[in-house]
Amino acid sequence: MHGHVDAAMLASNVPFEDPASLLVIPDHYLVRMLISQGVSPELLGWHPEGVRGVQSEEQARGVWRKFCEGWPLFRGTPTRFWMEHVLFEVFGLTEPPSEKSADESFAHISDRLARADYRPRALFERFGIELLATTDPADSPLDSHEILAQDGWRDRVIPTFRPDSLLEPLRERWGSELDRLSTASGIDAREYDGYLAALRQRRRAFIAAGARATDHSHVVADTTPLLETEARRVFSAAQAGHASKAEGRAFTAHMLFQMAAMSTEDGLVMQLHHGILRDHDRGFARTFGGNAGFDIPVSMEFSRALRPMLEAFGHEPRFRTVVFTCDETTYSRELAPLAGAYPSLRLGAPWWFLDAPAAMRRFREATVETAGFYNTAGFVDDTRAFCSIPARHDLARRVDAGFLADLVAEHRLSLDEAIDTARALAYDLPVRAYPPLTETHS
Amino acid sequence: MHGHVDAAMLASNVPFEDPASLLVIPDHYLVRMLISQGVSPELLGWHPEGVRGVQSEEQARGVWRKFCEGWPLFRGTPTRFWMEHVLFEVFGLTEPPSEKSADESFAHISDRLARADYRPRALFERFGIELLATTDPADSPLDSHEILAQDGWRDRVIPTFRPDSLLEPLRERWGSELDRLSTASGIDAREYDGYLAALRQRRRAFIAAGARATDHSHVVADTTPLLETEARRVFSAAQAGHASKAEGRAFTAHMLFQMAAMSTEDGLVMQLHHGILRDHDRGFARTFGGNAGFDIPVSMEFSRALRPMLEAFGHEPRFRTVVFTCDETTYSRELAPLAGAYPSLRLGAPWWFLDAPAAMRRFREATVETAGFYNTAGFVDDTRAFCSIPARHDLARRVDAGFLADLVAEHRLSLDEAIDTARALAYDLPVRAYPPLTETHS
Amino acid sequence: MHGHVDAAMLASNVPFEDPASLLVIPDHYLVRMLISQGVSPELLGWHPEGVRGVQSEEQARGVWRKFCEGWPLFRGTPTRFWMEHVLFEVFGLTEPPSEKSADESFAHISDRLARADYRPRALFERFGIELLATTDPADSPLDSHEILAQDGWRDRVIPTFRPDSLLEPLRERWGSELDRLSTASGIDAREYDGYLAALRQRRRAFIAAGARATDHSHVVADTTPLLETEARRVFSAAQAGHASKAEGRAFTAHMLFQMAAMSTEDGLVMQLHHGILRDHDRGFARTFGGNAGFDIPVSMEFSRALRPMLEAFGHEPRFRTVVFTCDETTYSRELAPLAGAYPSLRLGAPWWFLDAPAAMRRFREATVETAGFYNTAGFVDDTRAFCSIPARHDLARRVDAGFLADLVAEHRLSLDEAIDTARALAYDLPVRAYPPLTETHS
Repeated sequence: MHGHVDAAMLASNVPFEDPASLLVIPDHYLVRMLISQGVSPELLGWHPEGVRGVQSEEQARGVWRKFCEGWPLFRGTPTRFWMEHVLFEVFGLTEPPSEKSADESFAHISDRLARADYRPRALFERFGIELLATTDPADSPLDSHEILAQDGWRDRVIPTFRPDSLLEPLRERWGSELDRLSTASGIDAREYDGYLAALRQRRRAFIAAGARATDHSHVVADTTPLLETEARRVFSAAQAGHASKAEGRAFTAHMLFQMAAMSTEDGLVMQLHHGILRDHDRGFARTFGGNAGFDIPVSMEFSRALRPMLEAFGHEPRFRTVVFTCDETTYSRELAPLAGAYPSLRLGAPWWFLDAPAAMRRFREATVETAGFYNTAGFVDDTRAFCSIPARHDLARRVDAGFLADLVAEHRLSLDEAIDTARALAYDLPVRAYPPLTETHS
Repeated sequence: MHGHVDAAMLASNVPFEDPASLLVIPDHYLVRMLISQGVSPELLGWHPEGVRGVQSEEQARGVWRKFCEGWPLFRGTPTRFWMEHVLFEVFGLTEPPSEKSADESFAHISDRLARADYRPRALFERFGIELLATTDPADSPLDSHEILAQDGWRDRVIPTFRPDSLLEPLRERWGSELDRLSTASGIDAREYDGYLAALRQRRRAFIAAGARATDHSHVVADTTPLLETEARRVFSAAQAGHASKAEGRAFTAHMLFQMAAMSTEDGLVMQLHHGILRDHDRGFARTFGGNAGFDIPVSMEFSRALRPMLEAFGHEPRFRTVVFTCDETTYSRELAPLAGAYPSLRLGAPWWFLDAPAAMRRFREATVETAGFYNTAGFVDDTRAFCSIPARHDLARRVDAGFLADLVAEHRLSLDEAIDTARALAYDLPVRAYPPLTETHS
Repeated sequence: MHGHVDAAMLASNVPFEDPASLLVIPDHYLVRMLISQGVSPELLGWHPEGVRGVQSEEQARGVWRKFCEGWPLFRGTPTRFWMEHVLFEVFGLTEPPSEKSADESFAHISDRLARADYRPRALFERFGIELLATTDPADSPLDSHEILAQDGWRDRVIPTFRPDSLLEPLRERWGSELDRLSTASGIDAREYDGYLAALRQRRRAFIAAGARATDHSHVVADTTPLLETEARRVFSAAQAGHASKAEGRAFTAHMLFQMAAMSTEDGLVMQLHHGILRDHDRGFARTFGGNAGFDIPVSMEFSRALRPMLEAFGHEPRFRTVVFTCDETTYSRELAPLAGAYPSLRLGAPWWFLDAPAAMRRFREATVETAGFYNTAGFVDDTRAFCSIPARHDLARRVDAGFLADLVAEHRLSLDEAIDTARALAYDLPVRAYPPLTETHS
C-alpha cells in the first residue's frame, strides 16, 4: 500500500537498461552498505548534483563488478536473501555473485533484460502482483496512473497520497509547494481555507485514480490540533517567514489531526511512517541527493502523540490508521497496547531496517501477545527494487509461517488455526486493511 | 502480593452469577481485544455511566456468544492460554469456544457455577492458593478482610496499601480524598503533618489486617524529596487549587520518598507499578468507566528517578522495594543493573501486557545475566480474573522451567541447580520477598 | 583495545598474592552481586576510605569463603561462566565453589599462585594474548609501559588515551587536572590554546608508547562544536568556577568534536563508551570508592548527538570511531543504521552488562541485518579480571559461532562463508579496526 516503484516504468513499459541500473544503483540498502565499507559513491553510479546512473555499458559493468566484489559484506542481511532470490528465481543465475563471475553474470542478466518477457509489465504479471501502490506527492498529476488506467491497469497500480512537504511550513520551499498545490488543485492554497480545500480536492483526485491510502512521514508523531484561529495565525506567519520552530512543529501536528479528520470523511487509510532523521549527512545529501541510505531513525513516542487523534477518531468506523516504526521499543510498550484497544488502529509490518528476518520475528514476538494477529495490517514491501517484490513477500511469509509453526509445536495453536492465520497474514489482512474506495465515492 | 480480586467476593462467598459475568465482563484483557476488533462495548455488558453487567440470562448468553465468536482473535495471546486452562481445568469443557457451541458451553458452565464446590471459597481451596493479596485504597475500612479474618482466613486474604490518589495533589477530587483519609484515620489530614500522620496510621491499620506491602502507580518514577518547608507550601497551594503541574509532580515524587521512609520504619514492601497513561481515551473512560483496557504504557526512566530513594534507603536492611514495568527497555539498561547492586531492590515479574510467554522469556533473558535469579521477587499474578489464577502461575512456571532447561542443555547449569532454582522462582523468592509483618509489629 | 588490567602488574611481574585478592576483590561484577544480596562490603575486602584488600591470609580466606558461599547467586550470569573457566582451565580445580570446599580451593589456588608459571607474564603467554591495551589517564607517565618496552613487550601491552576528566570542566578537580596535564605535557594547559596543544602532545606521547586508540566515556554522546570564541569563553568561565551546567556539557561536546578532529590528524581510533551514571550511590562511592558496581546506565541518543562529528569526519579515510553502548535500544534503531552508512563508524562489542551470552546474541540479531558483520569491530574484553581474559574471548566466540551456525542451518549462509566470517569476527576485524600507528607517525 506504499512503495517506491516508479509508475512511469510500468506506464512506458520500456525494457530495463542493464543489471547495474536495475539492481544496484536505485537500491539504497545495497549502495549504503558498499559506501559504509569505503566504496566511493561515484563507482556505484552516484554522482555529484544528485545525478545517478551510468553513461556506458563499461560503466555499468564497473558498478556491477563493485557489487559482486562486495557480496560478502551482505552476509546475514536481507539484501543477501533478496538478491539471491532475484538472481536465481527471476534471472536464472545459479552461481552466487563474485568478482570472478561478475562479467559473466552481467552478460547473463543483460541478455534476459533484452527479452520481451523481462519488460516491466511482463515481470509484473509473472510476479503475480495483484495490486501495487506507488507513493506520490499531493500535487502529482498522476499521469502515469492515467496511462495505466487507459490500458486497463487502473486497479492494479494505484497512487498513494503523500503530502509531507505541504504539512511542514518551515521547509525552505514551502511557498513553492503551496504554489504547486494551487496549480494542481485549481484552488488558491496560499490562504488557510484554500489550503485545506486544495488538500481535500487532491485527496478526491487520488481516490478517483484508485488511491486507498495516504502516507505521512515526519520526525515526531504529534497529532495535537490547534485552535482554528491559532492555525490560521501560524499559517500566515510561516508564509511571512517568521514562524518559530515550535510553531512549525505544532502546525504539522495540527495538520496530521486534519488529515485524520479528512480520512474519517473520505475513507483513505492513514499510514504513518514517522521517526526518521532524513539526510543525516547533509553534505552528502547536497552532493549526491536524498534517499541515499543516510536516513537514520530516532526514538519515538506514540502514546501521548497519537492521543488527540485517537480520542477524536479512534472509534470512528470510517477511520483507519496503520502505524509503522523503526523504533522497536514502541512495539510492546505503546503500539501493541494501542492496537489492542482502539478499533481504528492497525500495526504496520516491520519497516525499513526492520524488514528482515530476525526483526520480523521480534515484531511478532513483541506484538502478538498484546494485539493478536488480527490488529496487524499484513505485509507491505515498501520497496524501490521492483524485482525484489516477490522475494520480500516470500521472506515475510516464511518468517510468519515459522512463528506460527512454533505456536503449533508448543500446542498453543492447532495446525488448522495456524494455516488459517498464515493465510490471513499473507492475504486477507492487507486486503481488509486497505479497502477500495472508488465505488462508494465516485 | 498485588492483585485485583475482590475481597468482598470471598467474604460473602455468594455463588458466581453466570459465565459472562464471571469470565468476560470483568476481564479487560478480553473485552479490550473484542472492542479493538469493532465489537460494541454494550454487547459485552459495558454500559454508559460505567455500569457493567447484565440484566438477564439472555443478555449474559449474548455476551458469552460474542466472546465465543471472537475466539480466533486471541490466537497467540495469553488470554487464549488462560481461558483454555480455565475452561478445561476449572470447568471441564472439552471443546474450544466457538459460535456454534456457545449456548452449550454457557449451559455447562452455568451448571457448574450453581454447585457448592464452585463457590468462591471452594475454588480458592481447590486452586491451592496459600495467600492472596487484594489492592485497597488507603481509606478502605477493610471490612471484607475483617469478615474473612473472623472466619479464620486472616492470613490467606490480605490487603495491600495503595495511596495513589492521595499522593497526586492535582487530581480533581484530592480534597475529598483528604477528607476520606481524615475520617478513616481519625486524624485531620487537611494539614501537612496530619496528612503524614494519617498515612502512617492507615499503614499500621493495614499491617494489623495482615498487609505486607504497599503499591504505587504514577506516570513517572521520580523520588526526589522536597525541603520540608517546600513540601508544606505545595501541600497548601494544592489545597487552595493553585499548585502548578510541576509542583504537583514534585510533591508526588516527595511523597514516594516519604513512603520509602515509612517502609523503612514499618517494613511494608514498597511495590512500584509506574509508567501507565491511565484512561488514554478520556471520552471512553467518561462513558464506560476506567480499567477499561485503555491504559497505555509510556517510556520510563528509573536510573535517575530512583536515585534519591536508593541513596537514602537502598542499603537499609528493613527497606525493600519491588519494581515492575511495562517498558522492557529498562530491563537490561536500568533495572537489572540496579537490582544487581542495591540490596533493597528486587525486580518484579513481567507486568500486565508483559505477563505473557514471549515477554516473560525476554524478561529472564534481559535480567538474569546482570541481576541473577535471586534479585527477582517471583511471580505475582496481579489479576482481576479469579479463575485464571492457577493458569497464570502455571504459565509463569512453564516459561521459567523452559528458560532453566535451556541453561541445562547448554551446560551452563546442572540439573540439580535448575530444579533448585525453579522452586525458588515459583515459591521461595516470593515468600522471602514479602515477609509477614504482624508478629514483629503487633 | 580498552581494558582495565594494570600495566604495573605485568611490568613488575610480582606473583599474585592470594585467590581473594586476585579473583574476588578487584572484580566488581562479583562483589556487586554479593552486596546486592546483603553481604557487607567489608567482608569482601572493601573498606572505608576506598581501601581495598586484605591484611592477612585469614582475611583473604574469609573473603574467598564469602564468594564460595555465594556461588548459587551467579547462576545464569556470565560471572558463573567466566569463573568456571578460570577455576577449571587456569587453576585446574575440578569441583565447583561451595562453602564446604572453600578452604580446599583456597589452598589449591594459593599453591598455584606461588609457582613461577602463574606469574603475570607467564599467564599472559599461556593465555596466548597477542596484544593487550590498558586504559590510562591523559597525564599518565606510562612508566609501566616503558618498563615493558625495555623488556621487549612494547607491541604486546599498549596504552589507551583516556582524557575524560579533562573534558568535563565542571568536575570538582578540573583545575588540578589541568595542572597535571601541564606538567605531563610541558605545555601550559591553563589557557585554551595550550590546553589543546597539551592534549595533542599527550596523544603523540601515547602513540609513541604504542597506543592505537583513545577512549571516552561521558553521560551523553553530544558532539556539537562551539564557535572558537565561545569555547574560549566557557574554558575561562569554568576555570573561574562560574560556568553553568549547560555550558559545561556544551564544552564536553565541543571537546569530543575536537578529539575527532585530532583523530583525523593522528589516526588514533576514537572509542566511545557513553551513557553511564557513574557512582549512582554517591554515599557508597564516598565510603568505598568508585568502580564499585554502582555505575548504572541511562537511555541514550546517538542519531542527533553524533551528527556533527559524522557530518564533519564521517567520510574521512583517516578517521575511525567505535561506538559501544549499554542501551540496547540503540542497536537496531540508531547504531546499526549509522554503521551501515558512514565508512568511519564501527560497532563495538556488547559492553559491560551486555558482555554476556544472551545479550551478545541480541547484539548480532539487532545489528547484522542492517550493518552486516563487517561494520563491527570485533570483541574487546574490557576487563579488570586478568585471568578471565581467555574465558571472555571464548564466550564471545562461542556465541558468534552459534549465531553463524543458525544462519547455515537456515541456508542463509554456506558453511565456508560461516567459517570465514567466524575468523573475521574473532581476529581479522579487531586487527583491522585498530591498526598500529607508530611506523607511519614515528
